[in-house]
Amino acid sequence: MSRIGILGGMGPSATVDFMDKLVQLTPATRDQDHLPVIVASLPHVPDRSSAILGTGADPLPALLANVDLLNHIGVGVVAIPCNSSHHWYPQIAERSRAPVIHIAQCCVAAVAATPRARVAVLATRGALASGFYQSALRERGIAFFVPDSTTGQHDVDACIRAVKAGDVPAGTAALDRALAAIAAAGATAVIMGCTEIPIAARAAAPTPLTLVDSSLELARATVAFALDKGWNRPAWVS
Amino acid sequence: MSRIGILGGMGPSATVDFMDKLVQLTPATRDQDHLPVIVASLPHVPDRSSAILGTGADPLPALLANVDLLNHIGVGVVAIPCNSSHHWYPQIAERSRAPVIHIAQCCVAAVAATPRARVAVLATRGALASGFYQSALRERGIAFFVPDSTTGQHDVDACIRAVKAGDVPAGTAALDRALAAIAAAGATAVIMGCTEIPIAARAAAPTPLTLVDSSLELARATVAFALDKGWNRPAWVS
Repeated sequence: MSRIGILGGMGPSATVDFMDKLVQLTPATRDQDHLPVIVASLPHVPDRSSAILGTGADPLPALLANVDLLNHIGVGVVAIPCNSSHHWYPQIAERSRAPVIHIAQCCVAAVAATPRARVAVLATRGALASGFYQSALRERGIAFFVPDSTTGQHDVDACIRAVKAGDVPAGTAALDRALAAIAAAGATAVIMGCTEIPIAARAAAPTPLTLVDSSLELARATVAFALDKGWNRPAWVS
Repeated sequence: MSRIGILGGMGPSATVDFMDKLVQLTPATRDQDHLPVIVASLPHVPDRSSAILGTGADPLPALLANVDLLNHIGVGVVAIPCNSSHHWYPQIAERSRAPVIHIAQCCVAAVAATPRARVAVLATRGALASGFYQSALRERGIAFFVPDSTTGQHDVDACIRAVKAGDVPAGTAALDRALAAIAAAGATAVIMGCTEIPIAARAAAPTPLTLVDSSLELARATVAFALDKGWNRPAWVS
Protein backbone atom coordinates (compact mmCIF):
# COMPACT_ATOMS: atom_id res chain seq x y z
CA MET A 1 0.00 0.00 0.00
CA SER A 2 3.08 2.25 0.18
CA ARG A 3 2.37 3.95 -3.14
CA ILE A 4 0.84 7.23 -4.23
CA GLY A 5 -2.25 6.83 -6.43
CA ILE A 6 -3.06 9.53 -8.97
CA LEU A 7 -6.59 9.75 -10.34
CA GLY A 8 -5.54 11.53 -13.51
CA GLY A 9 -6.18 12.28 -17.15
CA MET A 10 -8.33 15.30 -16.27
CA GLY A 11 -6.65 16.58 -18.32
CA PRO A 12 -3.66 14.50 -19.38
CA SER A 13 -1.22 17.45 -19.55
CA ALA A 14 -2.19 18.49 -16.03
CA THR A 15 -1.44 14.95 -14.85
CA VAL A 16 2.01 15.09 -16.46
CA ASP A 17 2.62 18.49 -14.86
CA PHE A 18 1.55 17.11 -11.46
CA MET A 19 3.84 14.08 -11.79
CA ASP A 20 6.71 16.36 -12.73
CA LYS A 21 6.08 18.36 -9.55
CA LEU A 22 6.10 15.17 -7.44
CA VAL A 23 9.49 14.25 -8.92
CA GLN A 24 10.93 17.75 -8.46
CA LEU A 25 9.71 17.97 -4.85
CA THR A 26 11.24 14.64 -3.79
CA PRO A 27 14.78 14.85 -2.41
CA ALA A 28 16.69 12.34 -4.54
CA THR A 29 20.07 11.72 -6.07
CA ARG A 30 19.16 8.47 -7.85
CA ASP A 31 16.07 6.63 -9.11
CA GLN A 32 15.75 4.55 -5.94
CA ASP A 33 15.31 7.65 -3.72
CA HIS A 34 12.01 8.51 -5.42
CA LEU A 35 8.42 7.76 -4.45
CA PRO A 36 6.43 4.92 -5.98
CA VAL A 37 3.42 6.21 -7.91
CA ILE A 38 0.57 4.52 -9.74
CA VAL A 39 -1.16 6.78 -12.24
CA ALA A 40 -4.54 6.11 -13.77
CA SER A 41 -4.53 8.71 -16.55
CA LEU A 42 -8.01 7.93 -17.84
CA PRO A 43 -9.23 10.88 -19.91
CA HIS A 44 -12.64 9.53 -20.93
CA VAL A 45 -14.30 10.70 -17.72
CA PRO A 46 -17.12 13.04 -18.86
CA ASP A 47 -16.38 16.76 -18.55
CA ARG A 48 -16.72 17.74 -14.91
CA SER A 49 -17.58 21.40 -15.36
CA SER A 50 -20.40 20.70 -17.85
CA ALA A 51 -21.90 18.11 -15.52
CA ILE A 52 -21.94 20.52 -12.56
CA LEU A 53 -23.64 23.11 -14.79
CA GLY A 54 -26.26 20.55 -15.84
CA THR A 55 -25.20 20.44 -19.48
CA GLY A 56 -23.20 17.19 -19.61
CA ALA A 57 -23.10 13.55 -18.59
CA ASP A 58 -22.46 12.55 -14.98
CA PRO A 59 -18.75 11.75 -14.41
CA LEU A 60 -19.28 10.20 -10.97
CA PRO A 61 -19.56 6.55 -12.13
CA ALA A 62 -16.26 6.88 -14.02
CA LEU A 63 -14.58 8.69 -11.12
CA LEU A 64 -15.64 5.93 -8.72
CA ALA A 65 -14.57 3.16 -11.12
CA ASN A 66 -11.15 4.79 -11.45
CA VAL A 67 -10.66 5.28 -7.72
CA ASP A 68 -11.72 1.63 -7.28
CA LEU A 69 -8.96 0.66 -9.72
CA LEU A 70 -6.33 2.52 -7.69
CA ASN A 71 -7.54 0.96 -4.44
CA HIS A 72 -7.68 -2.47 -6.06
CA ILE A 73 -3.98 -2.19 -6.97
CA GLY A 74 -3.25 -1.04 -3.44
CA VAL A 75 -2.36 2.63 -3.07
CA GLY A 76 -1.92 4.31 0.30
CA VAL A 77 -3.15 7.77 -0.67
CA VAL A 78 -5.02 9.28 -3.61
CA ALA A 79 -4.37 12.65 -5.26
CA ILE A 80 -6.66 14.05 -7.95
CA PRO A 81 -4.96 16.75 -10.03
CA CYS A 82 -8.30 18.11 -11.27
CA ASN A 83 -10.09 20.76 -9.24
CA SER A 84 -13.57 20.43 -10.73
CA SER A 85 -13.65 16.73 -9.83
CA HIS A 86 -13.65 17.80 -6.20
CA HIS A 87 -17.34 18.66 -6.56
CA TRP A 88 -17.70 14.90 -5.96
CA TYR A 89 -15.01 14.76 -3.26
CA PRO A 90 -17.42 13.47 -0.56
CA GLN A 91 -18.49 10.51 -2.70
CA ILE A 92 -14.92 9.73 -3.87
CA ALA A 93 -13.46 9.95 -0.35
CA GLU A 94 -16.30 7.80 1.03
CA ARG A 95 -15.62 5.15 -1.64
CA SER A 96 -11.81 5.08 -1.37
CA ARG A 97 -10.10 2.89 1.20
CA ALA A 98 -7.00 5.11 0.87
CA PRO A 99 -7.31 8.70 2.09
CA VAL A 100 -7.93 11.29 -0.63
CA ILE A 101 -6.12 14.63 -0.37
CA HIS A 102 -8.39 17.61 -1.15
CA ILE A 103 -6.74 19.96 -3.66
CA ALA A 104 -8.70 23.06 -2.63
CA GLN A 105 -7.98 22.56 1.05
CA CYS A 106 -4.23 22.37 0.27
CA CYS A 107 -4.43 25.43 -1.92
CA VAL A 108 -6.42 27.57 0.51
CA ALA A 109 -4.05 26.59 3.32
CA ALA A 110 -1.23 28.06 1.22
CA VAL A 111 -3.21 31.28 0.71
CA ALA A 112 -3.78 31.51 4.45
CA ALA A 113 0.01 31.77 4.79
CA THR A 114 -0.19 35.08 2.85
CA PRO A 115 -1.83 37.43 5.36
CA ARG A 116 -4.10 40.27 4.20
CA ALA A 117 -4.27 38.91 0.67
CA ARG A 118 -7.22 39.90 -1.48
CA VAL A 119 -7.69 36.74 -3.44
CA ALA A 120 -9.25 36.03 -6.81
CA VAL A 121 -10.25 32.47 -7.68
CA LEU A 122 -9.65 31.27 -11.23
CA ALA A 123 -11.42 28.01 -11.94
CA THR A 124 -13.89 26.40 -14.31
CA ARG A 125 -17.46 27.70 -14.27
CA GLY A 126 -18.45 24.32 -12.85
CA ALA A 127 -16.00 24.51 -9.95
CA LEU A 128 -17.17 28.04 -9.16
CA ALA A 129 -20.82 26.96 -9.30
CA SER A 130 -19.99 24.06 -7.00
CA GLY A 131 -18.53 26.54 -4.51
CA PHE A 132 -15.94 24.39 -2.71
CA TYR A 133 -13.22 27.05 -3.07
CA GLN A 134 -15.53 29.76 -1.75
CA SER A 135 -16.46 27.58 1.25
CA ALA A 136 -12.83 26.80 2.05
CA LEU A 137 -11.89 30.49 1.86
CA ARG A 138 -14.85 31.57 4.02
CA GLU A 139 -13.94 28.94 6.63
CA ARG A 140 -10.56 30.64 6.99
CA GLY A 141 -11.94 34.16 6.83
CA ILE A 142 -10.07 35.01 3.63
CA ALA A 143 -11.58 37.80 1.47
CA PHE A 144 -11.99 36.76 -2.15
CA PHE A 145 -13.76 37.45 -5.41
CA VAL A 146 -14.26 35.63 -8.69
CA PRO A 147 -13.99 37.05 -12.22
CA ASP A 148 -17.22 38.48 -13.55
CA SER A 149 -19.09 35.81 -15.48
CA THR A 150 -18.83 37.45 -18.90
CA THR A 151 -15.54 39.17 -19.76
CA GLY A 152 -13.27 37.93 -16.94
CA GLN A 153 -14.44 34.32 -16.83
CA HIS A 154 -14.43 34.22 -20.63
CA ASP A 155 -10.62 34.54 -20.59
CA VAL A 156 -10.28 31.89 -17.88
CA ASP A 157 -12.45 29.51 -19.93
CA ALA A 158 -10.35 30.25 -23.03
CA CYS A 159 -7.13 29.58 -21.10
CA ILE A 160 -8.31 26.19 -19.83
CA ARG A 161 -9.77 25.16 -23.19
CA ALA A 162 -6.56 26.10 -25.05
CA VAL A 163 -4.31 24.10 -22.71
CA LYS A 164 -6.62 21.09 -22.97
CA ALA A 165 -6.38 21.42 -26.77
CA GLY A 166 -2.56 21.48 -26.58
CA ASP A 167 -2.27 25.17 -27.54
CA VAL A 168 -0.35 26.47 -24.53
CA PRO A 169 0.61 29.85 -26.11
CA ALA A 170 -3.09 30.67 -26.67
CA GLY A 171 -3.73 29.61 -23.08
CA THR A 172 -0.99 31.93 -21.85
CA ALA A 173 -2.39 34.86 -23.86
CA ALA A 174 -5.85 34.34 -22.37
CA LEU A 175 -4.39 33.99 -18.87
CA ASP A 176 -2.39 37.21 -19.28
CA ARG A 177 -5.66 39.04 -20.08
CA ALA A 178 -7.41 37.47 -17.08
CA LEU A 179 -4.56 38.34 -14.70
CA ALA A 180 -4.38 41.94 -15.91
CA ALA A 181 -8.12 42.37 -15.31
CA ILE A 182 -7.88 40.80 -11.85
CA ALA A 183 -4.93 42.96 -10.83
CA ALA A 184 -6.85 46.03 -12.02
CA ALA A 185 -9.80 44.89 -9.87
CA GLY A 186 -7.61 45.03 -6.77
CA ALA A 187 -6.55 41.43 -6.17
CA THR A 188 -3.15 40.76 -4.58
CA ALA A 189 -3.18 36.98 -5.01
CA VAL A 190 -4.73 34.52 -7.42
CA ILE A 191 -5.69 30.93 -6.84
CA MET A 192 -5.00 28.96 -10.00
CA GLY A 193 -7.87 26.64 -9.14
CA CYS A 194 -7.81 24.56 -12.28
CA THR A 195 -4.79 22.36 -13.04
CA GLU A 196 -4.54 23.54 -16.65
CA ILE A 197 -3.91 27.15 -15.55
CA PRO A 198 -0.41 26.59 -14.09
CA ILE A 199 0.67 25.14 -17.44
CA ALA A 200 -0.43 28.37 -19.16
CA ALA A 201 1.23 30.39 -16.37
CA ARG A 202 4.75 29.04 -17.08
CA ALA A 203 5.23 31.70 -19.76
CA ALA A 204 2.87 34.34 -18.32
CA ALA A 205 3.78 38.02 -18.53
CA PRO A 206 5.25 39.58 -15.38
CA THR A 207 2.48 40.34 -12.86
CA PRO A 208 2.40 41.88 -9.38
CA LEU A 209 -0.02 39.12 -8.31
CA THR A 210 1.01 36.22 -6.08
CA LEU A 211 0.06 33.11 -8.07
CA VAL A 212 -1.00 30.17 -5.89
CA ASP A 213 -0.79 26.92 -7.87
CA SER A 214 -3.37 24.30 -6.82
CA SER A 215 -1.43 21.54 -8.55
CA LEU A 216 1.81 22.48 -6.76
CA GLU A 217 0.08 22.67 -3.38
CA LEU A 218 -1.49 19.23 -3.94
CA ALA A 219 1.93 17.89 -4.95
CA ARG A 220 3.53 19.36 -1.81
CA ALA A 221 0.88 17.76 0.40
CA THR A 222 1.18 14.43 -1.42
CA VAL A 223 4.98 14.28 -1.21
CA ALA A 224 4.89 15.31 2.47
CA PHE A 225 2.37 12.52 3.20
CA ALA A 226 4.46 9.90 1.40
CA LEU A 227 7.83 10.99 2.82
CA ASP A 228 6.32 10.98 6.31
CA LYS A 229 5.36 7.34 5.73
CA GLY A 230 8.86 6.55 4.43
CA TRP A 231 7.65 5.34 1.03
CA ASN A 232 10.85 6.64 -0.57
CA ARG A 233 12.88 4.16 1.48
CA PRO A 234 11.20 0.78 1.64
CA ALA A 235 12.99 -1.59 4.00
CA TRP A 236 14.11 -3.86 1.16
CA VAL A 237 16.01 -1.11 -0.72
CA SER A 238 19.72 -0.90 0.03
CA MET B 1 -7.68 -3.93 -22.07
CA SER B 2 -7.80 -0.78 -24.22
CA ARG B 3 -5.17 1.04 -22.19
CA ILE B 4 -1.47 1.75 -22.56
CA GLY B 5 0.65 0.38 -19.72
CA ILE B 6 3.88 2.12 -18.80
CA LEU B 7 6.50 0.23 -16.82
CA GLY B 8 8.11 3.38 -15.46
CA GLY B 9 10.09 5.04 -12.73
CA MET B 10 13.41 4.14 -14.37
CA GLY B 11 13.98 6.99 -13.83
CA PRO B 12 10.94 8.99 -12.74
CA SER B 13 11.81 12.09 -14.81
CA ALA B 14 12.18 9.96 -17.92
CA THR B 15 8.72 8.52 -17.27
CA VAL B 16 7.25 12.03 -17.00
CA ASP B 17 9.03 13.02 -20.23
CA PHE B 18 7.66 9.92 -21.96
CA MET B 19 4.09 10.63 -20.78
CA ASP B 20 4.42 14.20 -21.99
CA LYS B 21 5.42 12.88 -25.42
CA LEU B 22 2.40 10.55 -25.50
CA VAL B 23 0.12 13.53 -24.78
CA GLN B 24 1.82 15.77 -27.35
CA LEU B 25 1.69 13.09 -30.05
CA THR B 26 -2.03 12.37 -29.62
CA PRO B 27 -4.33 14.45 -31.84
CA ALA B 28 -6.77 16.00 -29.37
CA THR B 29 -8.80 19.12 -28.77
CA ARG B 30 -10.24 18.04 -25.40
CA ASP B 31 -9.46 15.62 -22.55
CA GLN B 32 -11.74 12.93 -23.98
CA ASP B 33 -9.75 12.68 -27.25
CA HIS B 34 -6.69 11.37 -25.38
CA LEU B 35 -5.45 7.85 -24.78
CA PRO B 36 -6.01 5.99 -21.51
CA VAL B 37 -2.73 5.20 -19.77
CA ILE B 38 -1.84 3.30 -16.61
CA VAL B 39 1.60 4.16 -15.28
CA ALA B 40 3.50 2.10 -12.74
CA SER B 41 6.25 4.57 -11.82
CA LEU B 42 8.05 2.29 -9.40
CA PRO B 43 11.59 3.58 -8.89
CA HIS B 44 12.83 0.98 -6.43
CA VAL B 45 13.80 -1.48 -9.16
CA PRO B 46 17.56 -2.10 -8.66
CA ASP B 47 19.87 -0.23 -11.04
CA ARG B 48 19.79 -1.97 -14.41
CA SER B 49 23.21 -0.94 -15.66
CA SER B 50 25.02 -2.08 -12.51
CA ALA B 51 23.28 -5.46 -12.64
CA ILE B 52 24.31 -6.05 -16.27
CA LEU B 53 27.89 -5.17 -15.33
CA GLY B 54 27.76 -7.64 -12.43
CA THR B 55 28.08 -5.01 -9.70
CA GLY B 56 24.48 -4.71 -8.48
CA ALA B 57 21.36 -6.61 -7.47
CA ASP B 58 19.21 -8.37 -10.06
CA PRO B 59 16.28 -6.16 -11.14
CA LEU B 60 14.45 -8.94 -12.98
CA PRO B 61 12.16 -10.00 -10.09
CA ALA B 62 10.99 -6.38 -9.65
CA LEU B 63 10.59 -5.89 -13.41
CA LEU B 64 8.43 -9.02 -13.64
CA ALA B 65 6.37 -8.06 -10.57
CA ASN B 66 5.70 -4.64 -12.10
CA VAL B 67 4.74 -5.99 -15.52
CA ASP B 68 2.47 -8.47 -13.71
CA LEU B 69 0.80 -5.51 -11.99
CA LEU B 70 0.10 -3.80 -15.33
CA ASN B 71 -1.29 -7.01 -16.82
CA HIS B 72 -3.36 -7.63 -13.71
CA ILE B 73 -5.06 -4.24 -14.17
CA GLY B 74 -5.60 -5.06 -17.83
CA VAL B 75 -3.44 -3.10 -20.25
CA GLY B 76 -3.34 -3.83 -23.96
CA VAL B 77 0.27 -2.90 -24.61
CA VAL B 78 3.33 -2.21 -22.47
CA ALA B 79 5.98 0.46 -23.06
CA ILE B 80 9.16 0.65 -20.94
CA PRO B 81 10.80 4.09 -21.12
CA CYS B 82 14.14 2.72 -19.88
CA ASN B 83 16.64 1.38 -22.39
CA SER B 84 18.84 -0.63 -20.03
CA SER B 85 15.80 -2.64 -18.85
CA HIS B 86 15.62 -4.07 -22.35
CA HIS B 87 18.52 -6.35 -21.46
CA TRP B 88 15.69 -8.43 -19.92
CA TYR B 89 13.26 -7.83 -22.79
CA PRO B 90 12.94 -11.55 -23.64
CA GLN B 91 11.90 -12.44 -20.08
CA ILE B 92 9.54 -9.45 -19.73
CA ALA B 93 7.86 -10.04 -23.11
CA GLU B 94 7.51 -13.75 -22.33
CA ARG B 95 5.84 -12.94 -19.00
CA SER B 96 3.49 -10.20 -20.25
CA ARG B 97 0.09 -11.09 -21.70
CA ALA B 98 0.06 -7.66 -23.42
CA PRO B 99 2.64 -7.11 -26.17
CA VAL B 100 5.74 -5.16 -25.11
CA ILE B 101 7.15 -2.60 -27.55
CA HIS B 102 10.97 -2.73 -27.81
CA ILE B 103 12.49 0.73 -27.43
CA ALA B 104 15.70 -0.05 -29.32
CA GLN B 105 13.86 -1.60 -32.26
CA CYS B 106 11.75 1.60 -32.57
CA CYS B 107 14.81 3.76 -32.31
CA VAL B 108 16.93 1.85 -34.81
CA ALA B 109 14.01 1.82 -37.27
CA ALA B 110 14.06 5.64 -37.11
CA VAL B 111 17.82 5.67 -37.77
CA ALA B 112 17.29 3.40 -40.78
CA ALA B 113 15.18 6.21 -42.26
CA THR B 114 18.35 8.36 -42.33
CA PRO B 115 20.41 6.78 -45.12
CA ARG B 116 24.21 6.74 -44.98
CA ALA B 117 24.26 7.92 -41.37
CA ARG B 118 27.34 7.17 -39.32
CA VAL B 119 25.77 6.54 -35.98
CA ALA B 120 27.07 6.82 -32.44
CA VAL B 121 25.20 5.08 -29.62
CA LEU B 122 24.92 6.89 -26.30
CA ALA B 123 23.68 4.61 -23.55
CA THR B 124 24.57 3.30 -20.11
CA ARG B 125 27.62 1.08 -19.82
CA GLY B 126 25.21 -1.73 -18.96
CA ALA B 127 23.11 -1.28 -22.10
CA LEU B 128 26.28 -1.18 -24.23
CA ALA B 129 27.63 -4.32 -22.53
CA SER B 130 24.29 -6.02 -23.15
CA GLY B 131 24.64 -5.20 -26.85
CA PHE B 132 20.98 -5.00 -27.93
CA TYR B 133 21.50 -1.69 -29.75
CA GLN B 134 24.53 -3.06 -31.58
CA SER B 135 22.60 -6.17 -32.63
CA ALA B 136 19.65 -4.12 -33.89
CA LEU B 137 21.96 -1.85 -35.89
CA ARG B 138 23.90 -4.78 -37.38
CA GLU B 139 20.65 -6.48 -38.41
CA ARG B 140 19.86 -3.42 -40.51
CA GLY B 141 23.41 -2.99 -41.81
CA ILE B 142 23.86 0.41 -40.17
CA ALA B 143 27.46 1.48 -39.42
CA PHE B 144 27.93 2.62 -35.83
CA PHE B 145 30.39 3.22 -33.06
CA VAL B 146 30.21 3.80 -29.32
CA PRO B 147 32.15 6.39 -27.26
CA ASP B 148 35.48 5.17 -25.98
CA SER B 149 35.09 3.68 -22.55
CA THR B 150 37.13 6.28 -20.69
CA THR B 151 36.77 9.91 -21.81
CA GLY B 152 33.70 9.68 -24.07
CA GLN B 153 31.62 7.32 -21.98
CA HIS B 154 32.60 9.23 -18.86
CA ASP B 155 30.61 12.24 -20.11
CA VAL B 156 27.63 10.05 -21.05
CA ASP B 157 27.65 8.52 -17.56
CA ALA B 158 27.86 12.00 -16.00
CA CYS B 159 24.94 13.20 -18.12
CA ILE B 160 22.68 10.31 -17.08
CA ARG B 161 23.69 10.50 -13.43
CA ALA B 162 23.05 14.27 -13.28
CA VAL B 163 19.56 14.00 -14.79
CA LYS B 164 18.69 11.19 -12.38
CA ALA B 165 19.85 13.45 -9.53
CA GLY B 166 17.63 16.29 -10.80
CA ASP B 167 20.54 18.47 -11.99
CA VAL B 168 19.57 18.90 -15.64
CA PRO B 169 22.02 21.78 -16.36
CA ALA B 170 24.95 19.57 -15.30
CA GLY B 171 23.52 16.83 -17.50
CA THR B 172 23.35 19.19 -20.45
CA ALA B 173 26.95 20.33 -19.94
CA ALA B 174 28.16 16.72 -19.90
CA LEU B 175 26.06 15.89 -22.97
CA ASP B 176 27.47 18.89 -24.85
CA ARG B 177 30.98 17.54 -24.23
CA ALA B 178 29.97 14.05 -25.37
CA LEU B 179 28.31 15.34 -28.55
CA ALA B 180 31.28 17.52 -29.46
CA ALA B 181 33.64 14.54 -29.13
CA ILE B 182 31.32 12.34 -31.19
CA ALA B 183 30.96 14.92 -33.96
CA ALA B 184 34.76 15.27 -34.04
CA ALA B 185 35.00 11.48 -34.37
CA GLY B 186 32.96 11.60 -37.56
CA ALA B 187 29.42 10.69 -36.50
CA THR B 188 26.48 12.20 -38.38
CA ALA B 189 23.75 10.89 -36.09
CA VAL B 190 23.45 9.97 -32.44
CA ILE B 191 21.12 7.50 -30.79
CA MET B 192 20.10 8.88 -27.41
CA GLY B 193 19.78 5.34 -26.12
CA CYS B 194 19.04 6.17 -22.50
CA THR B 195 15.82 7.98 -21.61
CA GLU B 196 17.57 10.49 -19.35
CA ILE B 197 19.65 11.83 -22.27
CA PRO B 198 16.76 13.54 -24.16
CA ILE B 199 15.98 15.51 -20.98
CA ALA B 200 19.55 16.83 -20.95
CA ALA B 201 19.33 17.46 -24.71
CA ARG B 202 16.46 19.98 -24.44
CA ALA B 203 18.94 22.76 -23.76
CA ALA B 204 21.94 21.28 -25.62
CA ALA B 205 24.27 23.54 -27.60
CA PRO B 206 23.69 23.64 -31.37
CA THR B 207 25.18 20.56 -33.03
CA PRO B 208 25.45 19.31 -36.62
CA LEU B 209 24.45 15.82 -35.40
CA THR B 210 21.02 14.31 -36.00
CA LEU B 211 19.75 13.39 -32.52
CA VAL B 212 17.55 10.31 -32.48
CA ASP B 213 15.50 10.18 -29.26
CA SER B 214 14.72 6.65 -28.05
CA SER B 215 11.96 7.92 -25.77
CA LEU B 216 10.28 9.84 -28.61
CA GLU B 217 10.50 6.85 -30.97
CA LEU B 218 8.96 4.59 -28.31
CA ALA B 219 6.21 7.18 -27.76
CA ARG B 220 5.51 7.37 -31.50
CA ALA B 221 5.21 3.60 -31.74
CA THR B 222 3.02 3.42 -28.63
CA VAL B 223 0.63 6.16 -29.79
CA ALA B 224 0.42 4.60 -33.27
CA PHE B 225 -0.42 1.21 -31.73
CA ALA B 226 -3.14 2.69 -29.52
CA LEU B 227 -4.68 4.96 -32.17
CA ASP B 228 -4.79 2.02 -34.57
CA LYS B 229 -6.83 0.13 -31.96
CA GLY B 230 -9.13 3.15 -31.49
CA TRP B 231 -8.37 3.48 -27.76
CA ASN B 232 -8.81 7.26 -28.05
CA ARG B 233 -12.46 6.78 -28.99
CA PRO B 234 -14.11 4.09 -26.91
CA ALA B 235 -17.62 3.29 -28.12
CA TRP B 236 -19.20 4.73 -24.98
CA VAL B 237 -17.67 8.23 -25.37
CA SER B 238 -19.90 10.75 -27.13
